[in-house]
Parts: sequence; structure tokens; C-alpha cells
Amino acid sequence: MTTQPETTARLLITCPDRPGIVSAVTTFLYHHGVNITELDQHSSDPSGGKFFLRLEFQTPTLDVSISALRQAFGDVVAKPFGMQWHITQASERPRMAVLVSKHDHALMELLWRWQRGELQVDIPMVISNHADLRAAVESFGVRFEHVPVTAETHAEAEAKMLALLKDQTDFIVLARYMRVLTGDFVSHYPSRIVNIHHSFLPAFAGADPYLQAYKHGVKIIGATAHYVTAELDQGPIIEQDTARVSHRHSIGDLKRLGRDLERQVLARAVRWHVEDRVIVDGNKTVIFAQ
Amino acid sequence: MTTQPETTARLLITCPDRPGIVSAVTTFLYHHGVNITELDQHSSDPSGGKFFLRLEFQTPTLDVSISALRQAFGDVVAKPFGMQWHITQASERPRMAVLVSKHDHALMELLWRWQRGELQVDIPMVISNHADLRAAVESFGVRFEHVPVTAETHAEAEAKMLALLKDQTDFIVLARYMRVLTGDFVSHYPSRIVNIHHSFLPAFAGADPYLQAYKHGVKIIGATAHYVTAELDQGPIIEQDTARVSHRHSIGDLKRLGRDLERQVLARAVRWHVEDRVIVDGNKTVIFAQ
Amino acid sequence: MTTQPETTARLLITCPDRPGIVSAVTTFLYHHGVNITELDQHSSDPSGGKFFLRLEFQTPTLDVSISALRQAFGDVVAKPFGMQWHITQASERPRMAVLVSKHDHALMELLWRWQRGELQVDIPMVISNHADLRAAVESFGVRFEHVPVTAETHAEAEAKMLALLKDQTDFIVLARYMRVLTGDFVSHYPSRIVNIHHSFLPAFAGADPYLQAYKHGVKIIGATAHYVTAELDQGPIIEQDTARVSHRHSIGDLKRLGRDLERQVLARAVRWHVEDRVIVDGNKTVIFAQ
Amino acid sequence: MTTQPETTARLLITCPDRPGIVSAVTTFLYHHGVNITELDQHSSDPSGGKFFLRLEFQTPTLDVSISALRQAFGDVVAKPFGMQWHITQASERPRMAVLVSKHDHALMELLWRWQRGELQVDIPMVISNHADLRAAVESFGVRFEHVPVTAETHAEAEAKMLALLKDQTDFIVLARYMRVLTGDFVSHYPSRIVNIHHSFLPAFAGADPYLQAYKHGVKIIGATAHYVTAELDQGPIIEQDTARVSHRHSIGDLKRLGRDLERQVLARAVRWHVEDRVIVDGNKTVIFAQ
Repeated sequence: MTTQPETTARLLITCPDRPGIVSAVTTFLYHHGVNITELDQHSSDPSGGKFFLRLEFQTPTLDVSISALRQAFGDVVAKPFGMQWHITQASERPRMAVLVSKHDHALMELLWRWQRGELQVDIPMVISNHADLRAAVESFGVRFEHVPVTAETHAEAEAKMLALLKDQTDFIVLARYMRVLTGDFVSHYPSRIVNIHHSFLPAFAGADPYLQAYKHGVKIIGATAHYVTAELDQGPIIEQDTARVSHRHSIGDLKRLGRDLERQVLARAVRWHVEDRVIVDGNKTVIFAQ
Repeated sequence: MTTQPETTARLLITCPDRPGIVSAVTTFLYHHGVNITELDQHSSDPSGGKFFLRLEFQTPTLDVSISALRQAFGDVVAKPFGMQWHITQASERPRMAVLVSKHDHALMELLWRWQRGELQVDIPMVISNHADLRAAVESFGVRFEHVPVTAETHAEAEAKMLALLKDQTDFIVLARYMRVLTGDFVSHYPSRIVNIHHSFLPAFAGADPYLQAYKHGVKIIGATAHYVTAELDQGPIIEQDTARVSHRHSIGDLKRLGRDLERQVLARAVRWHVEDRVIVDGNKTVIFAQ
Repeated sequence: MTTQPETTARLLITCPDRPGIVSAVTTFLYHHGVNITELDQHSSDPSGGKFFLRLEFQTPTLDVSISALRQAFGDVVAKPFGMQWHITQASERPRMAVLVSKHDHALMELLWRWQRGELQVDIPMVISNHADLRAAVESFGVRFEHVPVTAETHAEAEAKMLALLKDQTDFIVLARYMRVLTGDFVSHYPSRIVNIHHSFLPAFAGADPYLQAYKHGVKIIGATAHYVTAELDQGPIIEQDTARVSHRHSIGDLKRLGRDLERQVLARAVRWHVEDRVIVDGNKTVIFAQ
Repeated sequence: MTTQPETTARLLITCPDRPGIVSAVTTFLYHHGVNITELDQHSSDPSGGKFFLRLEFQTPTLDVSISALRQAFGDVVAKPFGMQWHITQASERPRMAVLVSKHDHALMELLWRWQRGELQVDIPMVISNHADLRAAVESFGVRFEHVPVTAETHAEAEAKMLALLKDQTDFIVLARYMRVLTGDFVSHYPSRIVNIHHSFLPAFAGADPYLQAYKHGVKIIGATAHYVTAELDQGPIIEQDTARVSHRHSIGDLKRLGRDLERQVLARAVRWHVEDRVIVDGNKTVIFAQ
């Protein structure tokens, strides 16, 4: 089934589970002329758990404006059920800033997909603590900002980045950004910073995961995309994938194979974030992926 | 989320897509005190396509009997929307007959899962065109019927099997049954015969797929579970899986690796069939799997 | 390529790497009429590293007895190169004892493959700290020993098991044996106890890995077969595999999916151990698998 | 284990299998001071089959020049055993020409890996039957040649391409080149044209494989890299991979997911070809991959 981004909207809901939610939501939308094209739901526990819902619907037959629909939905449905919710239009492209250090593969994968039209975002800027990737980024017509960081200038650098990002960005991707962000920085973008970690978390958190994996003699390596929280490498996992390795693979081979994993896993996670397919539930995620 | 089979019921619907279906269905159920615990839907095309819905719900809070609910749903919802539909209770274990020849691995996998309580079926009988597996089957406390087949006695043998199965079986699994069933036999169990084919269909349909795969030099082998139709190895695919192979693998190795694939793929397909997670849509399937 | 177990022998070598090893080994064997049918080698580092070699050869054209070949090889080749080595004949089936608690799936998978002739071992006994699986084991014609263990009787129970196993077993499989073995017990079978752990190690070592995985919200679960050392869940990894999961999967679902992984991973690891395809290299393994 | 391209050489051998080959080869190399760092072999059948060998060795300790080694090896070892063989140096980068039409993903993946130094080739030119990708190719500093093709000008276009490629290229990659090459063209580059086909061959050979897959309702899609022969989509398979799909995926989704498969599969196949890890054996391949 193919639908047009121009006419597609999405409703995401989190609320305490109780009977009647789907009925109330779908009946409300039906009476406003909405045509639902995707509906996915999840209950963490039908007795006293949380309920999650994602709807995709088409707007051409809507009998009111989107903003009027939002107003009415809030009053009529969301309030009585105690919902956290939002309605987005697929045509409103979120603004994605990318933070990167020297490794370019994860960044290039995103830029390349964006250039081809696979990733429905605007990219206001790429920020790096190194200048190396300026030319590569600018060749895509994307702004590049170099914000050096040292142990001494960490606070200052974060302040500078926050100033650059302010009002310019809806979410941030850490495409192998090798500096740890402070809890203060993270608090500006809760559940809106996606990181790619080059291991199968929770195994090999922290530095040099490929070296750790090599020394441990694992037969499978992995990559993990997750939301960043104040606790390093512990945020809610969005996506993971793995690849087989053997005693024949050097650390260099693990890094090479891992790059391919990182590119694929990050691209999927970003796509799902952009399409409103991820709902954070405490330290876990609900993923309404295709 | 864990739910009890005793109190779980399922509603499956296929109908022409049009706005308002989910609203009508969920509102009806809500008004009868039903607590929906799973809901999955699919539209082949929102404009003029088919709509598919699977609901799992809990019956304890139901305000009427299941049969009254069926009656009311048929009149109030199903009829106006032109639905094909059925409501089943998880506690009603379907009766699964198994047809097998000499290879025992697919059969054993099913019997073993059934014995452990992983497969919510009754097994009225296993029928084989060979006597070899009698002891193995009977050790599970399952009835074994030997119905020999030759080219000359094919019609007679099918008649005998149909007589054995009549009123005793809800669906049939071909667990490496090596005789081709006639269209007549198949017509008694439309979309109710699950076959495991030892290749990645449509590649290597017909006889000796591992030999075909070996000669072709493929780097990946597969197995396919599908519903049987009158056309050999062409019925709607339920599930497939693959495994990597190399030039080091002999035909014997392909068969050995393939057995593991066949066991896993068939077990998943049967589980989904039993849990009403498969809807046939022409020559394809909609799978509402977890 | 298919070869006969009766006439197949294997040579495994570990030694300091230096030029000329393969030449010396293969020339020696050639002069004794040996036909090499598989040769696999690995060097951890050509300068100052370790060298590993596995050869499969056919004995019918051998000009001396196997024991004379062993004697000569030791003197002429192994000694000058400082090799650890052994030659085994595929026809000498190693004796595999299995330790199990209450979960039967890993044990059943091994017994089932053994019964079909897929696993070239003898099984002198299955030992369990519970009596539950006696009938299931004995139905395969295999001896079952019940050795209860409590915190107080742990030493005594291990002594009893060691006495039962003594002179009866070449290696041990822990098929979900839920008691931790002491370093003393393990020291009797160095690199000869294969355990299946129900997680993707090193993630979720210790107790209740599926619960840990569930709470952590991972998108992939795993199973790991490894040799047991004195340090819990830290021994050299033989094989791992993974399966995708989602927010829809309960802990019960993880356990169910995990059982299938555990069965497959353990079966592969045991097969490789039995076919002399595993060489331990410190806390890692070299796997000369097909 | 990491080795330097500057000092790494490779020996590939195909010959009738018989005892003594490995001994003869390794002893010859040992006596010339060669340090073997990888050795992989395969016998299609020890009695009367074909034998395949790939050796990687380090040249610094060689007692003669590479050309003298080639001369001596030919006389002393290759001739008596009837070997087809060649010795290459990893530092001699093969020249890879790429043919492409309008889809850029497979081409971009190769150019991107080449730019990063992951692919040890020179790229003399990219040829396309469309002009669309000129700017993208030239931005990598690579020559772009536009050779339009119509049904009428097919012979002429192939002649023009052969003229462009002559003496400039060691092998050719068809990175989604959508015109069928004639047997005559192919005969100039036997086992030296690598094609990426967007299906799991032999399923869905020919045109529009994703449409075929969609209509067939398969649950897994694939991609296949193979050498081109005169017979369309039938040449020896080098590598394949697969990805799960479901009823939720439109044809557009299959194409999107398939692009990722095609990129990965082609990149692996080209890498193996470049590193002399592929030996063609009739309509199959022996892959000495890591």
C-alpha cells in the first residue's frame, strides 16, 4: 500500500490501559472523515498496564483543519483517557542535526539516504569536534560547524553546540560522536538524541567495543541504536543487529564488518524515529515498524 | 503480556476496505464488555482494496455468551460491511492430522512441541504411506494409520485417508509427505493443508530440491511452509527461512542443515495457523504474527 | 564431498608459528600414503603467534598402523616444532555424558540427533539433580542417574557425579544444568565441559538471562555454547546465535524463542567438539567448522 | 592477524585432485623462504575430483624475485600436477570498470568504499547508457563515459564499450546495468564480469524481480552476485543474502530493502574477487572467504 506524504498524518498515544480506547479513538476519527491506513497498538499489561497506539491516516477527507482536529481530539478523547499524544503530518519534515567525530561511515550513510529522498528530514547542520569532514559534508550542500572539545573546554563546547542547535533542530543523531555528552546537554533533547553504539548492548558498553569483542572471542558482533540518557550507553534501545565473525577476523576486520552493521542499524532507527514509529516506555521502546 | 487460553477469544475479519470498520468493530465489542488485548490490521489498498483484521480479546467481562456475541456481531457489524469472519476460542483446540512418509524430523518436531504443551492442538492421527514411523508415533500416545500408496492405488488411498480424516480433523500438516495429493483431496481442506517444502520457493519446486540447490551452487538454502492448492508447490506461502551454505557442503550436509530449517519453519507456520494468525488473500497470506 | 567415518582420521595441532610447518606435516603424511581430504589452518600472528592446524585424512592407503603413524609423527614432526597434537579416528566415538536439571529441550535435541545418527557419540549416562526426566531419558535406552544437590550437599553430590563419570566419559554437556560446578569439578574435564547459556554472552551472564533481557528491552536475544571454566559463564565461546524480538514478546515468549536458539547452538557446538573442530586458545576458540 | 598489502602475495591453484599436492606446493614455497599466512583448500571429490588451493604469503623473506618464483613454480610444481594457477601481488591493484544505468545505489556503495580505501582497485572508468550519473561519478574523480544503447544500436554500443575498456580494465562490475550483454561481449571477460541481480536466484530471474516477488507473496527477498555468462542470470553465484519481508511491504518497500541487500552483497562479492578469493568451478564457485 502506497500513500502520499503530503496527505498522511500520524497520531501517537500513550495512556493507562483500559477498555474502550480504540473504540473511542477510531470512532472520533471516523466521524471527522478520517481514513485510517495503518493502526498498531500495544498493551504492556491489559490489567493496569500502559497502552500505546500509532495510527496513520489520510487527511483529504477530513472535515476540519488539522489544528481543529487536534483541539477537538484533545478535549473529547485525550483528556478523559489521560493520554499523552501528538498528531504530526508526514509533510512536516523534522530537522535532524548530526554530531560526528572522525569516522564518516554512519554520517555518510545518512547523508546519502537523505540525498536520495529516503529520509524525510531537513538537515540544518552537522557539528563535529574535528574539522576533517567539512568538505565531505559541504559537498552535500549541508552546513558544517566545527566545535572543538577538550577536557577543559567541555562545558563551553556544549554551550556552543546548544546555542547552534537552539530553534534549529528537532532531534539529534550521534553518528559516532566520540565525546560523552553531559546530563545537562541531554536534558535539552529528552528521547530526541539517537546514538549508534558499535556493540551489541549491554555487552561491551563504554570505549573500544570492537577491541573488547575481539579479546572476548565472541562469535557474533553487533551494533545498537538507542536514545541517549544521562547514563552512558544505557538509554532505551531502538534497534540492534548482529553479524557472524570467527577466529579469522582481526580487530580491523571486526571494525570493517561493524561499520556495515552500524550504517544499517542507525539508518533504520533514524527512519523509525522520523516516521513516529518509536514510543519510549521507561527504559524500553515500543517500535511500530513495518 | 500474558493472557490465559481459557479466557482468550479471537476475531478474524476479511472485507472490502472502507472507512469506519475498526470503529464499528471495536465499538461493538466495547459495548459488550470485551477487553481487547491484541489488534492487528492490514489494508491491501485503502482505495478499493481488501481489509484484514485480527483481534484477541478476553471473555470474562463479556455481557453475553460467545454464541450470542457471534449472532449479534453477524447481524450488526459483519453484514453491513460484507465481512467474511469467524470468532474462535483459544480453549477450543483444533484437531491436527499429520501426513508423513519416511523422514521423521518434521513430524518429531511437531510431536515434541505438542507433548511439551507448546502447540495447542489435538492430534487425532498420523497417517503414513510407510509403516516405518509407527513405533515412534505411538510412543507419544498418538494413533498411527498406515495407508500404502502406489501409482495404481492412488485414488483408493486418498479415499481411504479422506474416510479416516472425516469428522476427525480441522487441518492437515504434510510433514514431508512425499506423494502429491490430487486437487480433489485438496478441495476437502481449502487453506487447511500446511506443507513444508524443502527449498526457498519458488526456487527448486518439485522433486529433490537439495540436489537442485547443490547443482546450482547457491550460497543460501531455504525452507518454505505453504498452504496446499491443486497446483504443486504453488500455494500461498506462510513462512520461509534460509541458512548459509558454501562449496564445502555436500548434498548430505545440505539435507542435514535443511532439516533444521524445515523443523523451525514448519513449527512456526503451524503455530500461526493454530493461533488464527494467518489469513489467505488469493495466492498470498497476511500473517499477524507476534 | 562425502567420506566414510570408518576410514577417516583427524590430526589437530597447536604450536608456535614459524615457517615450514604445513610443508613438514603434509610431506610426512604424503610419504606415509595419507590422502588429505580437509585441511584448515590458522595463525594468530605470523610473527611470534600460535599456529593451529586441523587435517582430515583417509587411512586405507596408509603404509603403517595408526599407532605407528602416531609414534613416527611425534618423533619426526611434532617434537622439532614443539607441537601439542593428537590424532583421532572418526570411528572412535567419544563418550558424552549429559548433566541436566528440569528443562528438557536441550537434552532432547541431543538425544534425538543421537538416535537419528547425526551425533557420532556414545552416551554412557544422563545425570540430573531432579528425577523428572528419568522416563524421557530411559525411553532412548540411555542410563539415567539422579544425583540430588542442595547447598549443603554440593561437595558430596559433585563427588558422587565424578565417581559415576570416572572412566566412563570423554566429555560432558551441561544441557541447562542449573547448578554451578566448582573449580575442582571442572578441573577434571578441562576444555571438555560444554555448557549452553541462554543469553548472548557476555551480556546477561548469571541467573535469569531472559528476565534480564526482557527488562533491558533488547531487540535481539541470543544463546551461547562455551567451555566451562572455574569462572562462571566466562569460558571460551564455541558458538552463538541470535533471534529478533520486540516489545510484543513477553518473558514467556523470550523463553520459547530462546529454547529454539539453545537447541540449535548447543547441537552445533557439540557436533564441532565431537568432530575435533574446536581448538581452545586461551580464553578464545579456533573453530574449524565447515 | 594483520598483514601488509605491499608484501602480500597470493597463489591460486586448480588441478585434478591427487595425493601430495599440498606437500609439493608448501615445500616448494618453504624452500624459497616464503612465509605462508593463509591457506585454504577444497576438493570436490578426493577420488577423481578437482582440487582448489588458495595461499596468501609474505614476500620479504623470498630468496628470488616474484617473476623467478613464478617461473620456477611453473616448471617444478604446476606442470607435473597439471595445474591452472596464478600468483598475484596484493599491491598490484586490479582495474575495475563499472557499468551502470540509472539506479545509483550499487555504484555509490562501490565508489564510497573505494574512496575510503576499503576496495583495493583502480577505477579507470564508469560507463552508463544514461547520462544521469555523470556528476555523481565525476565528484569522486572518476571518468564517466556515456554510451547510449537502443535496440538498434546494441551491437555498435557494445563495440564502443569494448574499445573503451580495451587494455584499461581487468574486470567489470555491472552495478544495476539494465541492458543484457551479448555472448560476444561476455566472451572478452570470462569469469571477469560481476553482476548484481536483485533477487534470490534462481528465483525471479529476468526482469522486475521485486514485482515478481511481491506478486508471489514470498516472506524473504534476496540479492545475488554472480559472474556473467552468455546465459542470462545463470552464471556462477558468488554471494547471496536475504531479508525478511511481510504483507505490510509494498513493492516500493521491497525495492528499498532490496537496495540495502544489493549494496552489501555486491560489495562482498567484489571484495572477494579483488582478493582472489573466488575460483570458478564450472557453473559454481569456490569461495575462500574469511
